[in-house]
Amino acid sequence: MLGSMKDFFVADAAKFDGQTVTTYFAVSSFSVREKKGAGGQYLALILSDKTGSMEARMWEDFASAMATCAEGCYVKVQGQVAKYQGKFQITLTKMRLAAASEVEPADYVPSTKYDIAEMWAELRGYVEAFQNADLRRLVFAFLDDGAIGTAYREAPAAKMLHHAWIGGLLEHVLTLVRVCRAVVPFYPEVDADLLVTGAILHDIGKVRELSWGTTFSYTLEGQMVGHISIAQGMLREKVNSLPGFPEKLRVLVEHMILSHHGRYEFGSPKLPMTPEAILLSALDDLEAKMQAMRNEFGRDAAAGKSGAEMTEWVRSMERPLLNSKAFLEEE
Amino acid sequence: MLGSMKDFFVADAAKFDGQTVTTYFAVSSFSVREKKGAGGQYLALILSDKTGSMEARMWEDFASAMATCAEGCYVKVQGQVAKYQGKFQITLTKMRLAAASEVEPADYVPSTKYDIAEMWAELRGYVEAFQNADLRRLVFAFLDDGAIGTAYREAPAAKMLHHAWIGGLLEHVLTLVRVCRAVVPFYPEVDADLLVTGAILHDIGKVRELSWGTTFSYTLEGQMVGHISIAQGMLREKVNSLPGFPEKLRVLVEHMILSHHGRYEFGSPKLPMTPEAILLSALDDLEAKMQAMRNEFGRDAAAGKSGAEMTEWVRSMERPLLNSKAFLEEE
Amino acid sequence: MLGSMKDFFVADAAKFDGQTVTTYFAVSSFSVREKKGAGGQYLALILSDKTGSMEARMWEDFASAMATCAEGCYVKVQGQVAKYQGKFQITLTKMRLAAASEVEPADYVPSTKYDIAEMWAELRGYVEAFQNADLRRLVFAFLDDGAIGTAYREAPAAKMLHHAWIGGLLEHVLTLVRVCRAVVPFYPEVDADLLVTGAILHDIGKVRELSWGTTFSYTLEGQMVGHISIAQGMLREKVNSLPGFPEKLRVLVEHMILSHHGRYEFGSPKLPMTPEAILLSALDDLEAKMQAMRNEFGRDAAAGKSGAEMTEWVRSMERPLLNSKAFLEEE
Amino acid sequence: MLGSMKDFFVADAAKFDGQTVTTYFAVSSFSVREKKGAGGQYLALILSDKTGSMEARMWEDFASAMATCAEGCYVKVQGQVAKYQGKFQITLTKMRLAAASEVEPADYVPSTKYDIAEMWAELRGYVEAFQNADLRRLVFAFLDDGAIGTAYREAPAAKMLHHAWIGGLLEHVLTLVRVCRAVVPFYPEVDADLLVTGAILHDIGKVRELSWGTTFSYTLEGQMVGHISIAQGMLREKVNSLPGFPEKLRVLVEHMILSHHGRYEFGSPKLPMTPEAILLSALDDLEAKMQAMRNEFGRDAAAGKSGAEMTEWVRSMERPLLNSKAFLEEE
Amino acid sequence: MLGSMKDFFVADAAKFDGQTVTTYFAVSSFSVREKKGAGGQYLALILSDKTGSMEARMWEDFASAMATCAEGCYVKVQGQVAKYQGKFQITLTKMRLAAASEVEPADYVPSTKYDIAEMWAELRGYVEAFQNADLRRLVFAFLDDGAIGTAYREAPAAKMLHHAWIGGLLEHVLTLVRVCRAVVPFYPEVDADLLVTGAILHDIGKVRELSWGTTFSYTLEGQMVGHISIAQGMLREKVNSLPGFPEKLRVLVEHMILSHHGRYEFGSPKLPMTPEAILLSALDDLEAKMQAMRNEFGRDAAAGKSGAEMTEWVRSMERPLLNSKAFLEEE
Amino acid sequence: MLGSMKDFFVADAAKFDGQTVTTYFAVSSFSVREKKGAGGQYLALILSDKTGSMEARMWEDFASAMATCAEGCYVKVQGQVAKYQGKFQITLTKMRLAAASEVEPADYVPSTKYDIAEMWAELRGYVEAFQNADLRRLVFAFLDDGAIGTAYREAPAAKMLHHAWIGGLLEHVLTLVRVCRAVVPFYPEVDADLLVTGAILHDIGKVRELSWGTTFSYTLEGQMVGHISIAQGMLREKVNSLPGFPEKLRVLVEHMILSHHGRYEFGSPKLPMTPEAILLSALDDLEAKMQAMRNEFGRDAAAGKSGAEMTEWVRSMERPLLNSKAFLEEE
Repeated sequence: MLGSMKDFFVADAAKFDGQTVTTYFAVSSFSVREKKGAGGQYLALILSDKTGSMEARMWEDFASAMATCAEGCYVKVQGQVAKYQGKFQITLTKMRLAAASEVEPADYVPSTKYDIAEMWAELRGYVEAFQNADLRRLVFAFLDDGAIGTAYREAPAAKMLHHAWIGGLLEHVLTLVRVCRAVVPFYPEVDADLLVTGAILHDIGKVRELSWGTTFSYTLEGQMVGHISIAQGMLREKVNSLPGFPEKLRVLVEHMILSHHGRYEFGSPKLPMTPEAILLSALDDLEAKMQAMRNEFGRDAAAGKSGAEMTEWVRSMERPLLNSKAFLEEE
Repeated sequence: MLGSMKDFFVADAAKFDGQTVTTYFAVSSFSVREKKGAGGQYLALILSDKTGSMEARMWEDFASAMATCAEGCYVKVQGQVAKYQGKFQITLTKMRLAAASEVEPADYVPSTKYDIAEMWAELRGYVEAFQNADLRRLVFAFLDDGAIGTAYREAPAAKMLHHAWIGGLLEHVLTLVRVCRAVVPFYPEVDADLLVTGAILHDIGKVRELSWGTTFSYTLEGQMVGHISIAQGMLREKVNSLPGFPEKLRVLVEHMILSHHGRYEFGSPKLPMTPEAILLSALDDLEAKMQAMRNEFGRDAAAGKSGAEMTEWVRSMERPLLNSKAFLEEE
Repeated sequence: MLGSMKDFFVADAAKFDGQTVTTYFAVSSFSVREKKGAGGQYLALILSDKTGSMEARMWEDFASAMATCAEGCYVKVQGQVAKYQGKFQITLTKMRLAAASEVEPADYVPSTKYDIAEMWAELRGYVEAFQNADLRRLVFAFLDDGAIGTAYREAPAAKMLHHAWIGGLLEHVLTLVRVCRAVVPFYPEVDADLLVTGAILHDIGKVRELSWGTTFSYTLEGQMVGHISIAQGMLREKVNSLPGFPEKLRVLVEHMILSHHGRYEFGSPKLPMTPEAILLSALDDLEAKMQAMRNEFGRDAAAGKSGAEMTEWVRSMERPLLNSKAFLEEE
Repeated sequence: MLGSMKDFFVADAAKFDGQTVTTYFAVSSFSVREKKGAGGQYLALILSDKTGSMEARMWEDFASAMATCAEGCYVKVQGQVAKYQGKFQITLTKMRLAAASEVEPADYVPSTKYDIAEMWAELRGYVEAFQNADLRRLVFAFLDDGAIGTAYREAPAAKMLHHAWIGGLLEHVLTLVRVCRAVVPFYPEVDADLLVTGAILHDIGKVRELSWGTTFSYTLEGQMVGHISIAQGMLREKVNSLPGFPEKLRVLVEHMILSHHGRYEFGSPKLPMTPEAILLSALDDLEAKMQAMRNEFGRDAAAGKSGAEMTEWVRSMERPLLNSKAFLEEE
Repeated sequence: MLGSMKDFFVADAAKFDGQTVTTYFAVSSFSVREKKGAGGQYLALILSDKTGSMEARMWEDFASAMATCAEGCYVKVQGQVAKYQGKFQITLTKMRLAAASEVEPADYVPSTKYDIAEMWAELRGYVEAFQNADLRRLVFAFLDDGAIGTAYREAPAAKMLHHAWIGGLLEHVLTLVRVCRAVVPFYPEVDADLLVTGAILHDIGKVRELSWGTTFSYTLEGQMVGHISIAQGMLREKVNSLPGFPEKLRVLVEHMILSHHGRYEFGSPKLPMTPEAILLSALDDLEAKMQAMRNEFGRDAAAGKSGAEMTEWVRSMERPLLNSKAFLEEE
Repeated sequence: MLGSMKDFFVADAAKFDGQTVTTYFAVSSFSVREKKGAGGQYLALILSDKTGSMEARMWEDFASAMATCAEGCYVKVQGQVAKYQGKFQITLTKMRLAAASEVEPADYVPSTKYDIAEMWAELRGYVEAFQNADLRRLVFAFLDDGAIGTAYREAPAAKMLHHAWIGGLLEHVLTLVRVCRAVVPFYPEVDADLLVTGAILHDIGKVRELSWGTTFSYTLEGQMVGHISIAQGMLREKVNSLPGFPEKLRVLVEHMILSHHGRYEFGSPKLPMTPEAILLSALDDLEAKMQAMRNEFGRDAAAGKSGAEMTEWVRSMERPLLNSKAFLEEE
């Protein structure tokens, strides 16, 4: 009998080498291919869960499976795990659409490894400590907004690059806020509350720029307007709802949002012109790069590469990278 | 006796060569300089009105003038007009601050040569003819807004380059709308009402980006936020005030505003992605270039240059220009 | 018995799903491949006609076919149409070289959907209406030149991007001329005849830059000299054949040809410096972009994509696009 | 009687308005000019000390002064302080070369406002705390090197932009080290000792790139080789003098030096590829920008500009700036 | 009595310090200025001959001089030579328009220091030695063309940068041909005759791009069409006049002309694609840079700068330069 | 019986079509693949020697081969040569690891076609002829250094582009030296010995940037430091070992090394500023481009392409190329 819970994850494939498993997946990719030289067709799939994805093949009797399944849906499958060309694959003997009741969506998308509630509480704590009451009520107007607050706790920070996982936005912002607070004592011209406000709100537009279901993608508004301008619109709406909010603070926060990408060619319509905007833009860029680097090192470690080796060319950074700690520790 | 009205204009200097005139000016620039080799100081000024500006000198007794006048104020002067190094100058013998009652501000800033009321009526006529009722009420929400409408009729389109005069924004928009309407029949994928909406609203942020008194300058918000993002904020506010305004139209209009500069390095956070946005961006750029060219040709003609000559290097366009019509007509 | 006319077109594949057809194609690509794991070889082809192209496979007995056919030739084939991986393919059982008498070349290359003779007549009509007799005889020297005129009516406007079909150059130019004529009234500094002359001659070098037989490609001269400089050479020759042609007009037309790409990095050795050159360059770029956009939308519609979706990333424009009309019409 | 000590400084000019002073200066600029319209010549100078510079004029009897003084030397002068065109000037009646014994060079060049010995001690303290003994002896090999150590305590960090004063290099490095140490806890992949080593040595080449006497300038080696490559050469020499220094550490430190400008076009022959190099490059750039910004705000405050105003266009940053704190505090 | 020949040259000013001279000049610049503080006007001029230019002043009685002289004409003057601000000036007491019979134009424009007839003969010799008869007759078709040949021997190679003197084009081409011939043996894939043809013809368009009378300037055609496209047109005309000239050679020579600037942003519509075009473009750029460098070193030597000093920033090369030979020779 | 020497080379495959051969190869690539549709796996390899590389397949019994062989090792194989899809492949029946004694490494990597000893002697001859004794002993300090000298004679000049073969660095340098010597007479401001020193040492860092065994690759130091900075470090060490070596010469040689890539974006931290550095940079770039071009033409000729055809797009040069000699010679 097929089970009713997901108890096999992609990351566990090595433990099940050669065994037959029954489990659930999200279907990331789905296509019928022709058997070369032998006539007939087979089904090629990429199946995924929160721990990764793997190739699957269904050689026979896939007509009924095809009739009900599609990319983006959840399936229950039975099949044998085996290694081909250095990677684990699964050869399916059964596949059917999974019922909603059988599936816990959180099992199928990558998520932050930190506790979202704890991160949220820490972030709110920083805001509660603001000396500037106007900025405090502005930030809480976002965090306490039901729809925004919920989305903020879930949203990834990107579709593919750094922090591309549930809770990634919150994780990214929280690290950024911590770094901002650590750096602020050395720059007396910076208003700490203003800087932290910028750090918390700069990417708020991502809650509408990205959508996250079984996969992450851009919304149409995200592509046509972009998270910078979405955020600016959200700011205007919140400010309008706060009687007596100082115009000067509005302009300074708006400026941080608009300029945080730091360069025109990265989609910022303004360059950073205040101490807070310059600091925020530099630390945001740094934090994204460090996380992207961490992802590359993790991928290489998972692939068993030695620390003495450089990574492949990293396209988003236009260079290869070296994990200096692993390099130094290696004998 | 000194008169009480401005009856001498900079453009008329040639008619008054060698004569003493009594008139009013705005003070564009004001500085005390040392008389070389002879000891003592004198006052050097640039005085301007709507027809242009000219240098002035006050060699003696300028202490009391200095005590009350400053850059940006209006003055009443008496002095002699004469030509130095090919340009007219005025040597002042008297100067005092002008009373508000003596001055008609319109005499001191350059203005469109077209009738603002007529242009406004023509523009409104195009909107009344919209088939799309939602876009019609959106555009009228701007035009009928007292503050915005008044500012729209007065604003220059730029601080220095094309259409840098009172009414310049309206003049620029109206020509753009006419050209859009002329071109639309050849591009069936374009929604005419949507395009004209974009043409009317794309630069609406300039009413807050620029300030226009005795001189034109950028507001602080203009520098920190920019007319593109200001316009986007204004759009959001108007849309929120229109119950049931379709979300799709909002995104498409917002996209036209954000992308109308056509390139990231010109401050657009998005590239044009719809037929309307591509058409608007191309025709807006063309219209600005043609007007800039017209200004150059006008300046050369005023300076008496022959049509067979190219202009000097035009920095904003990174090239010299040739007035082909004048070139062909010249014997 | 095999038929003697092409009565199956690629675009009709869906109607023949599962059926055996006998028809003609141009061979776009041709290669022998090894049957994986089973020994032996098979023939893989891409067959095309004016409506598109499709994959073909010949599993057996292809030795004699291989001996006589090659890329670029026409073949008669018999085979079964079927869908693999979402696309129609044809499995060939017979293939032989087609005789010249069996083939109407027009069936094998994409063509404009407009009537070439009508477009040609319209274009000539605009020239006949020129007030400037010199420009009129110059343009007719091109249009009435047997070789040039014939090629002008047939040439595509590009190898791959916008207007890559027979008659595409004429279609592109005619739209451009119409738009120029529509816009001219708003720019009094523009000489209409001069502008239209530029519109008609700017791409004339494409008749030598491109070759169009069963496929479109660049000529060696096209790659080494380019259509801009080819056009300039053609202009010099025609002008030399017209006694008394004014030197000034020659320079102005030559300048429009040389500068019409608008930027050095697009291969223009000069930037546009006259009103006509600036207008021509802007409208030519716009017209090419609008047609490229139309092609993308057509491709997506053919693929059954919903209007609410953006296109894939369009490499030549460095952005995705949105069909705003389809987007608005969609429920 | 002329005094023997410098007791008038440029920054005090306002207190001496209209008075005759006797004091010392460094000669920054020196030229003979023709008296316009009156025949004869006069001497025009720029005189400077550590607090700034001011214009001077000597109208008569300057022949003997000219015979002994030149740019870069120290002079004793007598003259009258007065304001011309909004700035203080001094009209000289006497000038002679100053004897070495009359001059304390520290009075003539701008210096850090911090205590150099204290900064030096703090910096050494961080190195003493290194856990990595190899890096500790490497850094001390530089700091304890007599010539390098002395120069390091004196050198400016730039000729003109940020930290262009005696002790500026040490001040810049110390702030950078503090910021690095504050940020390190948030990036576990970073080796703190390695990062701080990079922060201390990255600009060490400036001790040979710049020369600092009465003015700051580039050495010939500085222009032909540059501080990045000079530093790399210095590192190689020090490493060669340390038996058994690990090759891996040498490569990682060398890489930080070579890549710290972060972009090829800023003269870095390598992009940062390790966590330490990426962090160092980002924080170094940030620290330089924040100091440049501080200089701009200081200049505006000294000139009496209101905090609500933006600065002029700052060429090195390609934008104007806003002192947000002053802006918020202003009524 | 005033003499009738030019026997004072700008370069000789030092020998005449304090003396009154009577001589001829070309008027490069001419303006009336106001005497500061003293009333009245004076005449300020720049006077030049082939050895350079110097400032002149005429303080009195310049009305009749003004009535007949203008920029670009030749004048006879009497005046006193003296040094102001480190440069020689001349204070005029008399000035009148010079008669054509008094002036040898060659005295007034800078010229090559080599013998033009010898250079011409050497160049022709290389062509006579061509093995390829078609290229030989092509090049001679240019050199033996009366108008072109005369202009070729006189034309400068540039308006301001390298080789900006009479005979400069020939001098530049001859050096380039010599270098090409020296390098060719090391590149067997290069056709020597084809390369030398390219070297001789690549800049031939400069005979129409530039005009050279008393000053050098661009012609209108030079600005609107440019020397690259002018040369291409000249090539087409010559080729058409040579029956049976091989089409392949025409394309290869045309390609060298079009691509010799080596980059799109330098105005080449094509990049070099053949061995000859790549070699020509590289050596032409090198030759121009070496001459520009020589000019800078000459200027510094004339100004008495020491060889150990770098030049000022050279704008056209975006760097300062060092005369390495002088640097090494200096003690 | 299997033979003990390599007597079959990849370039000879056509002679052995259909035959069974026994020979040795280096393993460039090695992977196990799944037999499509038929179950089971097979081994796919790329085998190479100094003449090229070819695909190989092993369908059965490859378990023991897999256990001992890997990428980068040498193998002895038996198999049948046959053509698939226009290229030769080998179907293996036996494969084992080769013993070191069976393999001559020189058989497995591409090498210069010139005699290394002769090239070395010619290069040394040029140095012996130096007039400048300091430069002579500097260059010999490199050439006579055992480790450096050996590496210099073997190193390739690049991993993939021009001169990517054993001896390629020496071959590249020697041609460059010859060209430099041929050009020097035309540039009197160039010091010939200094220039040739630069030519010999500019790429010396490549002996540590690249590693060459059975394949060419970058060392970790090569990626992190780069050959320019490696060379600079080597220069500093050699200069330190030469007592009394003139500082001026050191700076000039160092500058040539640092600037030889000619542009910041190509990794040069300095632009060329001396006549020698400008000449070296231009001729080095030319020599690399000419060799890259030669490689492209060789590849096309080997593939049987006609000389009238242009090459495919060459990515490193961003253009296609034309072999003009072949083009002219073709009928």
